[in-house]
Amino acid sequence: MIRYLTAGESHGPGLTAIIEGIPAGLKLDLDAITIELRRRQSGYGRGKRMLIESDRALVTGGLWDGETIGSPIAIHIPNKDHKNWKNKQRQPKLIPRPGHADLPGYLKYDFTDLQKVIERASARETAVRTAVGAVAKQYLACFGIKVYSHTRQIGSVVNERRGKFTPVKFREIEKSKVRCADARIGTAMVAAIDQAVAKKDTLGGVSEVVVLGVPPGLGSYVHWDRRAEARLAFSLMSIPSVKAIEVGAGIA
Amino acid sequence: MIRYLTAGESHGPGLTAIIEGIPAGLKLDLDAITIELRRRQSGYGRGKRMLIESDRALVTGGLWDGETIGSPIAIHIPNKDHKNWKNKQRQPKLIPRPGHADLPGYLKYDFTDLQKVIERASARETAVRTAVGAVAKQYLACFGIKVYSHTRQIGSVVNERRGKFTPVKFREIEKSKVRCADARIGTAMVAAIDQAVAKKDTLGGVSEVVVLGVPPGLGSYVHWDRRAEARLAFSLMSIPSVKAIEVGAGIA
Amino acid sequence: MIRYLTAGESHGPGLTAIIEGIPAGLKLDLDAITIELRRRQSGYGRGKRMLIESDRALVTGGLWDGETIGSPIAIHIPNKDHKNWKNKQRQPKLIPRPGHADLPGYLKYDFTDLQKVIERASARETAVRTAVGAVAKQYLACFGIKVYSHTRQIGSVVNERRGKFTPVKFREIEKSKVRCADARIGTAMVAAIDQAVAKKDTLGGVSEVVVLGVPPGLGSYVHWDRRAEARLAFSLMSIPSVKAIEVGAGIA
Amino acid sequence: MIRYLTAGESHGPGLTAIIEGIPAGLKLDLDAITIELRRRQSGYGRGKRMLIESDRALVTGGLWDGETIGSPIAIHIPNKDHKNWKNKQRQPKLIPRPGHADLPGYLKYDFTDLQKVIERASARETAVRTAVGAVAKQYLACFGIKVYSHTRQIGSVVNERRGKFTPVKFREIEKSKVRCADARIGTAMVAAIDQAVAKKDTLGGVSEVVVLGVPPGLGSYVHWDRRAEARLAFSLMSIPSVKAIEVGAGIA
Repeated sequence: MIRYLTAGESHGPGLTAIIEGIPAGLKLDLDAITIELRRRQSGYGRGKRMLIESDRALVTGGLWDGETIGSPIAIHIPNKDHKNWKNKQRQPKLIPRPGHADLPGYLKYDFTDLQKVIERASARETAVRTAVGAVAKQYLACFGIKVYSHTRQIGSVVNERRGKFTPVKFREIEKSKVRCADARIGTAMVAAIDQAVAKKDTLGGVSEVVVLGVPPGLGSYVHWDRRAEARLAFSLMSIPSVKAIEVGAGIA
Repeated sequence: MIRYLTAGESHGPGLTAIIEGIPAGLKLDLDAITIELRRRQSGYGRGKRMLIESDRALVTGGLWDGETIGSPIAIHIPNKDHKNWKNKQRQPKLIPRPGHADLPGYLKYDFTDLQKVIERASARETAVRTAVGAVAKQYLACFGIKVYSHTRQIGSVVNERRGKFTPVKFREIEKSKVRCADARIGTAMVAAIDQAVAKKDTLGGVSEVVVLGVPPGLGSYVHWDRRAEARLAFSLMSIPSVKAIEVGAGIA
Repeated sequence: MIRYLTAGESHGPGLTAIIEGIPAGLKLDLDAITIELRRRQSGYGRGKRMLIESDRALVTGGLWDGETIGSPIAIHIPNKDHKNWKNKQRQPKLIPRPGHADLPGYLKYDFTDLQKVIERASARETAVRTAVGAVAKQYLACFGIKVYSHTRQIGSVVNERRGKFTPVKFREIEKSKVRCADARIGTAMVAAIDQAVAKKDTLGGVSEVVVLGVPPGLGSYVHWDRRAEARLAFSLMSIPSVKAIEVGAGIA
Repeated sequence: MIRYLTAGESHGPGLTAIIEGIPAGLKLDLDAITIELRRRQSGYGRGKRMLIESDRALVTGGLWDGETIGSPIAIHIPNKDHKNWKNKQRQPKLIPRPGHADLPGYLKYDFTDLQKVIERASARETAVRTAVGAVAKQYLACFGIKVYSHTRQIGSVVNERRGKFTPVKFREIEKSKVRCADARIGTAMVAAIDQAVAKKDTLGGVSEVVVLGVPPGLGSYVHWDRRAEARLAFSLMSIPSVKAIEVGAGIA
């Protein structure tokens, strides 16, 4: 029912998305989109570029007097460092980084500068998907569906407790630097990140997304590609850093 | 293989399109896009708004050093009169115009101002589709496929001759005010338009699109929705003013 | 919302379609499907193979106690002459027929026997699409939408009157050998067909499809590929023999 | 590029699939499809119905002289117990089973007999998807891509060793009752299943799918819905019993 395309490179003029299928009459809260973009950028231990960015989404289509009118919604997030980058003298990137799309991109397109891969394969693209998700969240809220998340693991520091939390608890979790539901474990996660940063290393982690208010039977059992769990897995696994997904009680 | 979405309202900030599926390595001629936009706006007898517009497409995604890099192409065409419009005092539009989407839009979305229909149902949207088409034309040109058109009829003035013209002839046709292949008939078409404008009336017409260099077997006979003719009809009939289509020798 | 795929060759075991998206609770009248298949086969002047066929659709999925249950509907139409054909000694077809997909099919797939093109490019495929359409008609009837058609032209014999007919009149039209609304003109059409058959020739024609009970605003003005007229043109132009389409008052 | 739909109920006449997009010239080994169907049915500890079934796929479209011809492939698997079932006196099923689609199906479609949900929500549907997969495997084999799998865990019995096996080893694994790469651990898995069956219980497990010969860059980094990992997750999570997915080194 709802489809979207995204475009834009990491150091190009900006990122763009078009969302088609949101009905008319949704009052879109632009500040709520900005808050989601800020949330994405404020992950503890992220690089300094994040601070420069402080993204803001411009809605250039689909809104009239602050309300959706049934037409596709166009979102544009300008890249703040595009100007500097444009005039910079750069050497072509020739050495593919392991664990990235650099080599496949080179093999497919025969580029002489790997920057042409890096620009789109970058996690920067998730900024505009965050904006798309922020619109989706507001639409879902019309039906009483609320989307939350919290951190279950960073490196080897684990919070075993699963997400049976109230909305009030989730609001409190947002105040944690690492969005951990347990203050003591959260402190240990922060320490683990600090140690990794000091060693110029990175850490993996586990995040749990909790959706409250979902009516039974969302999706469909009648055809494989309409199953809710399949579609969730499709969307989540399309985020470059996601390598494992567990639905519901899953393995347990 | 190639898909696109468009967004934007007639008097909003601008029109946006994202094209997904154009491969890497296509040198995109931005002036050629502007020429197509100009061509769309310079139809003889069009309203004065056309002259104000003089559209120009900004490509904000998918290009690096003037070449496509395989990533989606984002196109934005700013609306020149958005600023004036934004601050204008307006009365809500309450009376649906016949032959437009005003009434269906009102019935579907329960709008109290029909402007919310008019903004998107407007032919203004075809500006960004023209830009999408201009990109497609450049891509097709890589395979020696060229797209031309000429006017077969305006009101009751008909040019019977069908489009067996050379590329040279098609370039000449572009110089005609009404893109008629026959100078004498073209003059009669201009006169017909002038008369209609004087009566505050409009005229229908017939345009012939001629594509040269198409390899045999484009599309497919194996499934209904992959047939080239079906897809052409889909695209053409999605232009609001197109109400009849004839393929090849068609009725003849 | 509703999608379908078709499969099957002209002289293979049979034709198959799967329709996905019809909701639960529709009592499917199988005889009504047979009537549509019979209607397709009984066009005046058609070849003798038509009489052999007398198609019947088997519904092998999506029905339970005669009612749809939300799951995809599978339709199979056995080919009556498959058995004879299977054991026949055949020479490979080497000469492409003009105006058919034979040459493109050969160029694309490098077949040594053009029969492999003919089998699928054949109009036989429209039998199973007729069955798909018969299901769609029953679904549309739930909303009071009725689909009729009548013949406006065969060869040079024209019935100028357009389809402002009542359902009663349309039922009467069905009794005409050529489905012409005017008995006298119908007789002339029959004569024209007889003459063409005698000369081993064929004739083109114009058929008008009339849909009654359509609510205003079906389809959507918000995106090009959701426009009702575009979708109608897509479906209609995918029928091999259709080369021109006119919507509503169209050219007039 | 390739799409497919499936239809059919658990106790209806049979299961059907149509695969659209397989090119011409693939010699289809029907026995290889049967072997995959047999493989699906011979899981150790499966119910007795499996033994009755012994599925066989009929290809009723898309094949000519044993080769694909570019047209859609239709597959039909008859349900062997359909005849018995058809004439059986049945009471309507009224009590929804936990962990199944029974309740959602009832809420969505207002059925008075839950059998209408069970028929399609059943894992029986995966039989025809196995046949679709068997065709896909043969197509992939043209490019030197081979798909294998082995069992990593059943209940609490784990084979820690990951799938760095040769094709020879994978053929050997097929001989294990539980497809375990380690004979001793395999015996423990069999014992665990026997115990669970004795207690009328079931066990979860972990299966690893290993694909050899995949060229780098399959899928695409340019758009979220073209990513190979996202598409794999989509397909795998659409299998009712799959609740967790890990790609590559994943969590490790």
